[in-house]
Amino acid sequence: MAQAVKMITGKSAGNIHLYSLAMQHTSVAEEGVGGFRESNERLEYLGDAVLGSIVAEFLFKKFPYKDEGFLTDIRSRIVNRDALNNLALKIGLKELVKYDSKRKTALSHKSIYGDAMEAFIGAYYLDKGFKSCRKFIISKLLKRHFDMNEVLDNPTNFKSLVIEWAQKHDKLVRFEIMQKGTKHKSQFSAQVLVDDQEIAQGYGYSKKKAQQDAARKACEALGIE
Amino acid sequence: MAQAVKMITGKSAGNIHLYSLAMQHTSVAEEGVGGFRESNERLEYLGDAVLGSIVAEFLFKKFPYKDEGFLTDIRSRIVNRDALNNLALKIGLKELVKYDSKRKTALSHKSIYGDAMEAFIGAYYLDKGFKSCRKFIISKLLKRHFDMNEVLDNPTNFKSLVIEWAQKHDKLVRFEIMQKGTKHKSQFSAQVLVDDQEIAQGYGYSKKKAQQDAARKACEALGIE
Repeated sequence: MAQAVKMITGKSAGNIHLYSLAMQHTSVAEEGVGGFRESNERLEYLGDAVLGSIVAEFLFKKFPYKDEGFLTDIRSRIVNRDALNNLALKIGLKELVKYDSKRKTALSHKSIYGDAMEAFIGAYYLDKGFKSCRKFIISKLLKRHFDMNEVLDNPTNFKSLVIEWAQKHDKLVRFEIMQKGTKHKSQFSAQVLVDDQEIAQGYGYSKKKAQQDAARKACEALGIE
Repeated sequence: MAQAVKMITGKSAGNIHLYSLAMQHTSVAEEGVGGFRESNERLEYLGDAVLGSIVAEFLFKKFPYKDEGFLTDIRSRIVNRDALNNLALKIGLKELVKYDSKRKTALSHKSIYGDAMEAFIGAYYLDKGFKSCRKFIISKLLKRHFDMNEVLDNPTNFKSLVIEWAQKHDKLVRFEIMQKGTKHKSQFSAQVLVDDQEIAQGYGYSKKKAQQDAARKACEALGIE
């Protein structure tokens, strides 16, 4: 494990136990203090938050004239389940993650490697601190494994995703748009309704943006990725 | 503004422009470079992420034997819209936020102060860096304005929230629970269905936990706070 951490991060692990724990899926969790089952889920929770804030700042500074809808969208293209799973495989976590393969299918954990990726980040953050963690994420993960032009060129069409989902699940999906404000400074709001039930609402200074915003929130609400 | 920042944070502002921008609601945004409308929304996006990660770490360390479901729950009690609105009022942001009161109602922005709270954190983070921001959040916000015993004693009953929501909106809500795994190491999964449509799924090592987890996700999906 020590060698793997050095390979992945370029730094020697301080507390190797953290990284081992990060690779321990809940299906192989062991009972510890007071019956508490030690697995990588706590580290995943921490790593998810840390990764989110570091990517947020990275994009905030990279795109000084883009609004928060854009930044949120680009961030979700980088930290979504598929992207994190791919990232985990690229840096070699597949060989390190421990799980019970029988239980894996039973629990249908599709994100076992992506979760381990987040837990690894949580472990590194605790081991090396914020600044080192930021450097690791930016130089070893973002710059090395994400082609930002490609990320930008391939916008997630959230509206299509919602429509596909609805067709697959035999639901009726509808987008409703309303205009608010004055003629010259108008803002739009969009609703996504599934079987006439509102599931998300979005805003924007154009109809398209409001719809995209609402569709993105609908994807979150419906667990579409 | 300089005086206010000193009062709130205990530190003198470096870049005062950041804090002014943080108090500028989108209803009074001005057009800047390339038609880009400068408001506090970008800082809010950044502050939200930074606050989330700092509270995540704070709770991670405070509760070493609690699982990530607990940590996520407690965090959401601290950083939800109401709590952030209250916090903003407590530290005096009401006097600082600038917005167009006519547009405020039109746009139904219920979270104008909470959003400004997040933007203020984003501004402070950019101005003073991560360590100082963490100290500010923990000592001036969390420890001063949140009674952790009260937070712990008042669990959000997400299931009740979902049921109330359903009654109010004339929907039929149903919880379904399934048991997985072996007899001795069983895990439960719970589904929340609204009008027979699955809107959230949760997991846990007890029926109650799985249900609470699913209900919490349903609240997110439905925008219930």
